[in-house]
Amino acid sequence: MITVGIIGAGRIGRVHVESICTQVPDAKIKMLADPFMNADTEKWAKDMGVAATTKDYKDIINDPEIDAVLICSSTDTHSPISVEAIKAGKHVFCEKPIDHDVAKIQEVIDALKENKVKYQVGFNRRFDHNFEAVRDAVAAGKIGDTHIIKVTSRDPEPPSAEYVKVSGGMFLDMTIHDFDMVRFLAGCDAEEVYVQAAVLVDPAIGEAGDVDTAVITLKMKNGSIAVIDNSRKAVYGYDQRVEVFGSKGMVAAENDSASTAVISNADGVTGEKPLHFFLERYMAAYAKEIKCFIKAIVEDADTPLGVMDGLEPVLMGLAAKKSMEEHRPVKISEITA
Amino acid sequence: MITVGIIGAGRIGRVHVESICTQVPDAKIKMLADPFMNADTEKWAKDMGVAATTKDYKDIINDPEIDAVLICSSTDTHSPISVEAIKAGKHVFCEKPIDHDVAKIQEVIDALKENKVKYQVGFNRRFDHNFEAVRDAVAAGKIGDTHIIKVTSRDPEPPSAEYVKVSGGMFLDMTIHDFDMVRFLAGCDAEEVYVQAAVLVDPAIGEAGDVDTAVITLKMKNGSIAVIDNSRKAVYGYDQRVEVFGSKGMVAAENDSASTAVISNADGVTGEKPLHFFLERYMAAYAKEIKCFIKAIVEDADTPLGVMDGLEPVLMGLAAKKSMEEHRPVKISEITA
Amino acid sequence: MITVGIIGAGRIGRVHVESICTQVPDAKIKMLADPFMNADTEKWAKDMGVAATTKDYKDIINDPEIDAVLICSSTDTHSPISVEAIKAGKHVFCEKPIDHDVAKIQEVIDALKENKVKYQVGFNRRFDHNFEAVRDAVAAGKIGDTHIIKVTSRDPEPPSAEYVKVSGGMFLDMTIHDFDMVRFLAGCDAEEVYVQAAVLVDPAIGEAGDVDTAVITLKMKNGSIAVIDNSRKAVYGYDQRVEVFGSKGMVAAENDSASTAVISNADGVTGEKPLHFFLERYMAAYAKEIKCFIKAIVEDADTPLGVMDGLEPVLMGLAAKKSMEEHRPVKISEITA
Amino acid sequence: MITVGIIGAGRIGRVHVESICTQVPDAKIKMLADPFMNADTEKWAKDMGVAATTKDYKDIINDPEIDAVLICSSTDTHSPISVEAIKAGKHVFCEKPIDHDVAKIQEVIDALKENKVKYQVGFNRRFDHNFEAVRDAVAAGKIGDTHIIKVTSRDPEPPSAEYVKVSGGMFLDMTIHDFDMVRFLAGCDAEEVYVQAAVLVDPAIGEAGDVDTAVITLKMKNGSIAVIDNSRKAVYGYDQRVEVFGSKGMVAAENDSASTAVISNADGVTGEKPLHFFLERYMAAYAKEIKCFIKAIVEDADTPLGVMDGLEPVLMGLAAKKSMEEHRPVKISEITA
Repeated sequence: MITVGIIGAGRIGRVHVESICTQVPDAKIKMLADPFMNADTEKWAKDMGVAATTKDYKDIINDPEIDAVLICSSTDTHSPISVEAIKAGKHVFCEKPIDHDVAKIQEVIDALKENKVKYQVGFNRRFDHNFEAVRDAVAAGKIGDTHIIKVTSRDPEPPSAEYVKVSGGMFLDMTIHDFDMVRFLAGCDAEEVYVQAAVLVDPAIGEAGDVDTAVITLKMKNGSIAVIDNSRKAVYGYDQRVEVFGSKGMVAAENDSASTAVISNADGVTGEKPLHFFLERYMAAYAKEIKCFIKAIVEDADTPLGVMDGLEPVLMGLAAKKSMEEHRPVKISEITA
Repeated sequence: MITVGIIGAGRIGRVHVESICTQVPDAKIKMLADPFMNADTEKWAKDMGVAATTKDYKDIINDPEIDAVLICSSTDTHSPISVEAIKAGKHVFCEKPIDHDVAKIQEVIDALKENKVKYQVGFNRRFDHNFEAVRDAVAAGKIGDTHIIKVTSRDPEPPSAEYVKVSGGMFLDMTIHDFDMVRFLAGCDAEEVYVQAAVLVDPAIGEAGDVDTAVITLKMKNGSIAVIDNSRKAVYGYDQRVEVFGSKGMVAAENDSASTAVISNADGVTGEKPLHFFLERYMAAYAKEIKCFIKAIVEDADTPLGVMDGLEPVLMGLAAKKSMEEHRPVKISEITA
Repeated sequence: MITVGIIGAGRIGRVHVESICTQVPDAKIKMLADPFMNADTEKWAKDMGVAATTKDYKDIINDPEIDAVLICSSTDTHSPISVEAIKAGKHVFCEKPIDHDVAKIQEVIDALKENKVKYQVGFNRRFDHNFEAVRDAVAAGKIGDTHIIKVTSRDPEPPSAEYVKVSGGMFLDMTIHDFDMVRFLAGCDAEEVYVQAAVLVDPAIGEAGDVDTAVITLKMKNGSIAVIDNSRKAVYGYDQRVEVFGSKGMVAAENDSASTAVISNADGVTGEKPLHFFLERYMAAYAKEIKCFIKAIVEDADTPLGVMDGLEPVLMGLAAKKSMEEHRPVKISEITA
Repeated sequence: MITVGIIGAGRIGRVHVESICTQVPDAKIKMLADPFMNADTEKWAKDMGVAATTKDYKDIINDPEIDAVLICSSTDTHSPISVEAIKAGKHVFCEKPIDHDVAKIQEVIDALKENKVKYQVGFNRRFDHNFEAVRDAVAAGKIGDTHIIKVTSRDPEPPSAEYVKVSGGMFLDMTIHDFDMVRFLAGCDAEEVYVQAAVLVDPAIGEAGDVDTAVITLKMKNGSIAVIDNSRKAVYGYDQRVEVFGSKGMVAAENDSASTAVISNADGVTGEKPLHFFLERYMAAYAKEIKCFIKAIVEDADTPLGVMDGLEPVLMGLAAKKSMEEHRPVKISEITA
């Protein structure tokens, strides 16, 4: 039985509380920390079966009974708390991204060299049933050598301009998941990236210094070519599809929807829209990533997504930003701390 | 080169004129007959490359140069003209049904015993690309032994009450195609039929003594069970689907539509309706059945659909009518001339 | 907070334990009863959070703290325990079927007249996301008046001949779910049933006195026609589809599968099979029916599936049996206790 | 009635002969020219209804009765014969590409300025039912402003290395169709192109100086971003799909296949592969483009695809080539004669 502490009681922290309490029999949550902890959250946590709550995450770091820490706090705290927890000998599950600053991620890498704990980054989409099936087909050789990888990733609603300003930009905030997906599907790192981006959804996003629409081409180290298309707003819902094409065939995954019901009438043949909300689409994936993290601890095995898997998408995001700014293809190796 | 005469210049007669003129290089049309032949039709026929026109179909029967006759005139003339043409030594392609009266079909059968000509009945749907693919899969053993056959056949628009009165009833007018389809897919005859029918589309059809909605269950001679569902009006178009289920799997065919384009928007994910008009859906099938007829003549082989294939669906239709009237399962063998 | 006792710790009893413990915050399980209760089951129940276990279901009936009872024991005990629990003032959720004997169901109906408790029957499929979406479309008038209802229901594996002997026959054991589905989709009762059935899957089933393949036609009280097709063995998995056709259109639901991944290669374009196992397909539906039962208690409202909803499918099943035996359409009203 | 001469009796010339003879009642073919004209081709042409054949295309140019010329000869002859025919006052339908050399295309443009004849370029895919439906949806505003355009275009079989050497390279030989498609769907020209390409299918193609796999990103003049992915070999067939995403939704078209038949068995749920051969997939489109050309002549209207529509894709192809060679985004305006 693994004893867990969760830092951050926001949306994603609560998702992990629920997953662990209902679907991970090998783990129990001893403590939930959040600087804005209040009576409501305390009650909710208690009802869920969480033993204790606190405003100070250090109570978790310092608790010798806690084996593993889930870092679900704000992005800027991911890397420093990671380092603290690692040094305290805790296994760490850290939400993405570890940091926007490569030097900070390097500090986590360094801490891990000295402390033999498990570290997992929260790229939940790898655990999605559709993408796992695609990756399994690729890994089983069903499409032969990989030639072209396509990822469509479009959000149902654009973020506010306020959020955009602190988000690190679309490539580090949104595309970072797709960069991870490309690595997952290709089974290798990227070598070079080229971005064609625009502000087409909301001028306020442009005024905030960001883009909202992009097509991103990547040359992968195995010779294949990947392409991601992003939009901050798909009116028909959360659009999350992939396609991998190779020497022996193609495997592709479509969106999930709430039901298979289709209505045929005088207007056409109409099925349901893709699931709209990321928590709905990826709920099972969130539970599965935590199960895998706990399993890696229990079995003393590698986590499915180590710290280097946290670093690479950040490098890709920074290279994408540079490509957009300098309007040229940029090698990932150009990005350094 | 087979010389053809076509009797009947209505909708289906014209379809065959066009098919032969543009897609059947082995055949040429020498004469087109229609009692209502007028200047417009004459001009159309001439432009299509038809050598001559006439009001009297006997000009075709009596023309020694004509090898084969297509009977596309009104239903009541199918069997007598068939007999005349057969006795004149012509190969005959006869639109469905040969007759609603079994005794009349028997006269055709008798005429064929004495005259070695080819005879084909116009159950065009067997030549449809989708149903051929389903039948091929069944015949190739891909679904093992056949257990359940399902045919959905719904028209886009109900007929007028006037037409209904002279149509012979839905089972002989519309379901007759589905009875043939069931035989085609099962690869055997039916043994017994049970009908549950209703007037749900248009009360005028009921007043004309017919039904417009039905579910028809058939016990087939190979032990499988078939079920047909019919409606005279599907607002979304001409609905023509089949499914065959067996010991090793299932094969099913969906409708055709005008394009694969699908629109995703705030209202859902909408594709095109099934093709609306039977001539549009089955145009290629109409051409193919004539090609097969001409080929059978050229190669002196059996036609794909002989006179007995014309008889059986009529027996099934009459048994269906009896089942509805007597509200009980009826054996096909109960129907006699 | 509703206090629950569960009678029966077999497969379905355990499903309900898990659902309540993880997804029904308004309910807690005080006791789990099973005549074969052993140490393993006791441990499992304790780990799940069940307060107590017993071999004697009367401990649940007699516990004044228990508000509601779930009857998940063997079929022959459903009606007597229902009566006992109702008389003890417990709300009852009873797995389907209440009984194969109409007189026994009548005793439950009588008991409910004298005791104002909630009663719900376990026709879980009504709570499936696909079928709910179909029913919602029908209820919202999206297809107009209902003309034809089609239910395809095929199991992935046939039962053993031993099970068949005690099952009550396919119509009461398997089709009973489809009879309920037809009532759910039509929004009314059936008036008459006709069965065409066969032994095509396994001769041992025939030797055990049952059939394994059937097409069942029903005349519904609203004038529509329903048709169910059943097989005890679909090699491609658990096939659960419905289609409702009406004056303004059609709504249909396809199967669920494990992922949307599709592989295109030299052999074709291949997607995943339907989910194979009923617990996998209907897991969410099982949880939802219990949530609805608890909600009905909490809000003192009608349950979504009352005792008459338990009776009607049994009447339909018995009428189906009679139709098969007497080879004729049978009115539901012919079936009496 | 338009009198037509066809120059080139190769594969595509024959397609046009067949289309005109069977589907274009307003046109008749007076002469078919081919330097390799032989007895077989002469016989075939005569049987099709072509009045005369010749080895010398100038017989067509000089025939005062011929109104319109179809240029289906080898690529290098397209522009000089275009100029000759235009100067002779003939309407011209010219297969793509007009030329690989922009200066040569300019000569055609100049000839057209002085001679008021119709000119149409053979980008047949615009006339495909699927792509027309997509374009119609975009033009009707159904997806709002266009943000992202995606074109997947993969051939079923790679060309021989010999062909590759004289093909002008993949961008001018194969992608040129996709460049036209992007312009068609966007309703505007491209501004800039970036290519990421590789040799992944066949090393012999690389040795011949070409690539066989590419992802091509385009910035369009209306602000949208387009992306094309190409492969010279898709083992599952001819893969021709498009997707247009905009502010109000998305419209996408899938491949066509030979039938809608789907087999479900123990291996999965398998439908047919995309149509393999381009003539099969685009046969109706080839006929439609010629009908439109003849209609433009008859009605003295603009052709749907003028000489500038022939020029732009060549500029895009040359820019793509330059982008690949110089490994940078290239503006279309950088390409000049």
